[in-house]
Amino acid sequence: MNHRLEKLSQWMKETGTDVCFLTSPENVFYLSGFLSEPHERLLGLAVFQEDEPFLICPGMEKNDAKRSGWNYEIIGYSDIDNPWELVHKAIQNRLTKANTIAIEKEHMNVERFEQVTSLFPGASIVSAEEKLRKLRMVKDEKELSAIREACALADFAIETGVAELKEGKTELDVLAAIEYALKKKGVTEMSFSTMVLTGVNAASPHGTPGLKKIQKGDLVLFDLGVIVDGYCSDITRTVAYGDINEKQAAIYETVFKAQKAALEAIKPGVLCSEVDLAARRTISEAGYGEFFPHRLGHGLGISVHEYPSLTETNNLALEEGMVFTVEPGIYVPEVAGVRIEDDVAVTSNGIEILTKYPKELQIIK
Amino acid sequence: MNHRLEKLSQWMKETGTDVCFLTSPENVFYLSGFLSEPHERLLGLAVFQEDEPFLICPGMEKNDAKRSGWNYEIIGYSDIDNPWELVHKAIQNRLTKANTIAIEKEHMNVERFEQVTSLFPGASIVSAEEKLRKLRMVKDEKELSAIREACALADFAIETGVAELKEGKTELDVLAAIEYALKKKGVTEMSFSTMVLTGVNAASPHGTPGLKKIQKGDLVLFDLGVIVDGYCSDITRTVAYGDINEKQAAIYETVFKAQKAALEAIKPGVLCSEVDLAARRTISEAGYGEFFPHRLGHGLGISVHEYPSLTETNNLALEEGMVFTVEPGIYVPEVAGVRIEDDVAVTSNGIEILTKYPKELQIIK
Repeated sequence: MNHRLEKLSQWMKETGTDVCFLTSPENVFYLSGFLSEPHERLLGLAVFQEDEPFLICPGMEKNDAKRSGWNYEIIGYSDIDNPWELVHKAIQNRLTKANTIAIEKEHMNVERFEQVTSLFPGASIVSAEEKLRKLRMVKDEKELSAIREACALADFAIETGVAELKEGKTELDVLAAIEYALKKKGVTEMSFSTMVLTGVNAASPHGTPGLKKIQKGDLVLFDLGVIVDGYCSDITRTVAYGDINEKQAAIYETVFKAQKAALEAIKPGVLCSEVDLAARRTISEAGYGEFFPHRLGHGLGISVHEYPSLTETNNLALEEGMVFTVEPGIYVPEVAGVRIEDDVAVTSNGIEILTKYPKELQIIK
Repeated sequence: MNHRLEKLSQWMKETGTDVCFLTSPENVFYLSGFLSEPHERLLGLAVFQEDEPFLICPGMEKNDAKRSGWNYEIIGYSDIDNPWELVHKAIQNRLTKANTIAIEKEHMNVERFEQVTSLFPGASIVSAEEKLRKLRMVKDEKELSAIREACALADFAIETGVAELKEGKTELDVLAAIEYALKKKGVTEMSFSTMVLTGVNAASPHGTPGLKKIQKGDLVLFDLGVIVDGYCSDITRTVAYGDINEKQAAIYETVFKAQKAALEAIKPGVLCSEVDLAARRTISEAGYGEFFPHRLGHGLGISVHEYPSLTETNNLALEEGMVFTVEPGIYVPEVAGVRIEDDVAVTSNGIEILTKYPKELQIIK
């Protein structure tokens, strides 16, 4: 068994869980190496304390699953099979009784849950989500290398967007140019909907890109990410289009300093809350505390939002291999919105900053 | 109450359902007019037999909900509130006891389901999904007009893609040009991931666009859709790049004829299965039966796949106002893949074809 499966089996022994039946594409990919989005069809991975795990997927994907490197049983089903009966049989082949079954309670829907409870009447159903979040939080070298590549493409995307800025162009014009350039490089999936926001639009945490035109004196905010081999990047940069006023410049400087303070605070053993507070304090001391309404950052990996969460109350200690965003922001309604976001990996004694596009205030003329 | 809410309340009386608590953005939008994607936060709409409905949403979206035209209670909650307690209280204000609660079993996750069952112990939990699918199946004039607009943009997208074809360009190059042109027109969301597939790639129902280059003699398949005011379009066209061989031409002609036969069969009272079979028969008689492995079409609206489903076994009768795709295809591995797809609305005596891009075989030189 791979290390990830071993760790899950170990947790199952400790907690007395007989079967883990996971159905989210993210966790199935994490544990099996098979990346698939079967929509309404069932994709599942069953893990046991001692017995061999198995994968169940639509029949037409069975070969893809094999090619992904999964060496245990793969059950393929057709559209006229009842996949739940096949799951039940495969579990019964391994265990005489499943008393405790772990599922993903935030992912599984009620219809599927009713299938599980009717196939295993009386079984106690618990959640494996928290454990999986913790396992996925610390990345190995292969994961880091996919994220590095995704970050390099995110840098390229910002470079493209900045080069595209011109008076009279709309937010969507610039956004279109960014995604066009990425597709030309073979990128097929973004981590989330790309944001290009200009002027007061960037000052609302709720802005969506539209037909607003870029004007001299605007701050323009880019927030985007790219998926490479199943792993996400997530970057934000804010640049000035033409000369900006003192208020805008002061806000930029404050965010820039706050981000620097947070980055400098990161190393193994430091608490997530300490990193958040390093940035939050800088922003509060400059008088903008009420305009920084969100957490400092979030973990990043197969999902664009995962553990750890960098909030002012999370007392989890950082570990080598954790990957997360550091993204302080100040949003003063009708004045300016500035956010600077990097993706970082915790190293043995500090950090590796994975996104490398410059952060000093750029004035595009 | 609007007609949609009235119809749902009527169904609740007939089935003895005390509360409908709907949480999918699609059904909340359909019944309330409020379009929102709150991700992991709760968005919910409660409907009763006689009492006034209410909406619950994150506090920062309350004003958007009001602006959407919803005239009943809106409960906004903050990140430190427990929204489920607020839901419970609002229901108790209206009903002494909720014995039967309808939810969306394919949408609600187990974690939320456990909230519902613990707040209403002993209540019978049923599904409202089938009823909502049936309500949404027949479109009103306002819905039709959004879909018409989405279809016009889909036509424009195909036109753009066809104009972009050139030897040596990759599938992603052409795809990038299409989405660029759409964004320039203000389109912010596609119905699904755009497909541009060329040559043998189009012959696999599993093809994904990549770095494959267009060559003379290829058939190029475009499948895409656009969302306008919350409503989807979905079009497929296949064109020849340079002269194609007789086998390819014969496949194209067969799909073209099959699509025509299906379109001619559509009018109120005809069964879904009869429409599917009109196309399927044409394809089988030409000897390609085994290479048409999917249903003829699917309903289209707020979701890109909804009711009715046009299969050879669905004996539902067509009604005026239904909107669906008609998309026969033939995929001969290593030879050619051709699909032609229109969106149509059933009228009082026939059909309105909503997608209008030409379908006769085009040979691009």
